[in-house]
Amino acid sequence: MRKIFLSLMLSLIALPAVAAEPLVLRGMGSFHVGGRIAEVSGKETRTITRVPGGPPSKYDPNGQFMVEQMYVQYFLPQNRKSKLPLLMWHGGGLTGVSFETTPDGREGWLNMFVRKGWDVYVSDAVERGRSGFASQDIWPSEPAFLNYKDPYERFRIGQGEGSWNADPAKQRPIPGTQFPVEAYENFMKQAVPRWLSTDDAIIAAYVALVDKICPCVVLMHSQGGSFGFKVAEKRPDKFKAIVAVESASAGVIANAPALKSIPVLMLFGDHVDAHPRWAAYKKIDVTYADAIRAAGGKVDVVSLPDVGITGNSHMLMMEKNNAAIADLIDTWLVKQGMAE
Amino acid sequence: MRKIFLSLMLSLIALPAVAAEPLVLRGMGSFHVGGRIAEVSGKETRTITRVPGGPPSKYDPNGQFMVEQMYVQYFLPQNRKSKLPLLMWHGGGLTGVSFETTPDGREGWLNMFVRKGWDVYVSDAVERGRSGFASQDIWPSEPAFLNYKDPYERFRIGQGEGSWNADPAKQRPIPGTQFPVEAYENFMKQAVPRWLSTDDAIIAAYVALVDKICPCVVLMHSQGGSFGFKVAEKRPDKFKAIVAVESASAGVIANAPALKSIPVLMLFGDHVDAHPRWAAYKKIDVTYADAIRAAGGKVDVVSLPDVGITGNSHMLMMEKNNAAIADLIDTWLVKQGMAE
Repeated sequence: MRKIFLSLMLSLIALPAVAAEPLVLRGMGSFHVGGRIAEVSGKETRTITRVPGGPPSKYDPNGQFMVEQMYVQYFLPQNRKSKLPLLMWHGGGLTGVSFETTPDGREGWLNMFVRKGWDVYVSDAVERGRSGFASQDIWPSEPAFLNYKDPYERFRIGQGEGSWNADPAKQRPIPGTQFPVEAYENFMKQAVPRWLSTDDAIIAAYVALVDKICPCVVLMHSQGGSFGFKVAEKRPDKFKAIVAVESASAGVIANAPALKSIPVLMLFGDHVDAHPRWAAYKKIDVTYADAIRAAGGKVDVVSLPDVGITGNSHMLMMEKNNAAIADLIDTWLVKQGMAE
Repeated sequence: MRKIFLSLMLSLIALPAVAAEPLVLRGMGSFHVGGRIAEVSGKETRTITRVPGGPPSKYDPNGQFMVEQMYVQYFLPQNRKSKLPLLMWHGGGLTGVSFETTPDGREGWLNMFVRKGWDVYVSDAVERGRSGFASQDIWPSEPAFLNYKDPYERFRIGQGEGSWNADPAKQRPIPGTQFPVEAYENFMKQAVPRWLSTDDAIIAAYVALVDKICPCVVLMHSQGGSFGFKVAEKRPDKFKAIVAVESASAGVIANAPALKSIPVLMLFGDHVDAHPRWAAYKKIDVTYADAIRAAGGKVDVVSLPDVGITGNSHMLMMEKNNAAIADLIDTWLVKQGMAE
């Protein structure tokens, strides 16, 4: 009998993701927030052919352009557990796709938190993905592109610089890594260019989103945390809780007291202290946490290995144990009264 | 009694979109297809600060980069009506967002066709949206940006050149237009830059998608049709039906016989013949249709005003009557045996 049960269990595990419980949504959709009209003048008009074989048409780089808007997609479960929507803000060089299907084809945090009963809003920061980007006439700097091996060596997937190799047999992943290294190529397909001069525009668009959707809970990853804490400082009444997943720097120390009524969870993966870059970011985060606490606020700093969750790189939402981390986050949010 | 019924009806109409029947999905997710590794060399390495206040790190524009992949998001209804997935390919300067919530906040064709029981796959063409783009070291040409007023004057929303004005009172929309002109700003937030040199890469990624997902039905809009017919010529066995919505040019005439076993619906909105640019595209399309027919194939060319559906601009999927056009398409697909 136990054998039959075990084989049934194994066959269930082998089924594709689509065979899980259905997702029942009372709605899904998308919108853009923020943005402004920018003017360009003095550039030469030219004639282009928009599609091969099509008629020629005028291309005018002058005039008004809509720029710095932000794309947001939402999924609203029928069995809603909280009145507070959960916003997911991605990290640098990436888009909201971080939270969708994992590179190795499993469900990501978007689906998991919708299944847990949260209204989830996933956005692409200004300049990334479906938010579009502005011309160099409007943003003076050039975009930066992510080298194929860079995240492997920098995101604590491999053992630092020199650990990537085009030959998988010669790659040196961190032993016991939870990152789906066999699907690294699919992860790199999620990477998009980023600018280094658009922080103010990104923060403005996040503020516009918060003004539209919140009060809410915000889950922010990496660079998303750097933006998110600054947005929280501007709109403390709208943030009911913050989950900062390996926030890559935090807010402005002098403004930290603004967050004194917002419960904050700071999560860190494995091997952070062994990598100077991540140790530096963590120090910035915990210093900011101390400043919130000094003002009477509450910050839980959790290093996952300390609670028995080991092997995590910087990309916690797409790793083999992403469900365990989602459970930890959900449990913490419920404990803060966010599902009441 | 009739009064109570009427007031009940009105209150139902006034409810937000989320109050419609729930969407029951057996799965949803995303992936990227295609792409290649491109090499860059000889460029100078520099030090950048990725987030304000964070530690400096090396930025190396050289090395390998993942480029020309394509983003695809899918929604699989529990009550599936067809074994054939329905792929939606957007037009130029836009992304898959075209098929999502309309600029004025109603459900778009993505939701509508999922509700009708189709497995729907919405993609962002190479270089657009969540597919990312390559540096000028890899793609030599610069992107083109859509002027704020351009689609208003060019997409048969306004009465041609000069019909746009920043003052809504001075705008000259085509009388009776179905385009939600009051939400034109939101439509322009959906626009993204486009290149004029990436057609081969876009076609290659669509071929990779077709090889992964099809046999299927493909709904292609505007520039998406220019790509889609060429992809169909390369993979005629994988296309079970084509819905070309104002296809902005078509395939290669000499290759048209490859489509002789694929039922094709070509749809056109209102006022096409009065606008030389759209009349030119339509002529290309119907010439291509004739070439398919000459090889023994079947093409239905439908001008919507001829079947009583009037006022449509180039952006049929987001207009006030988008549900009526979705019904027409669905009925045609069922009639071709696509739901068997």
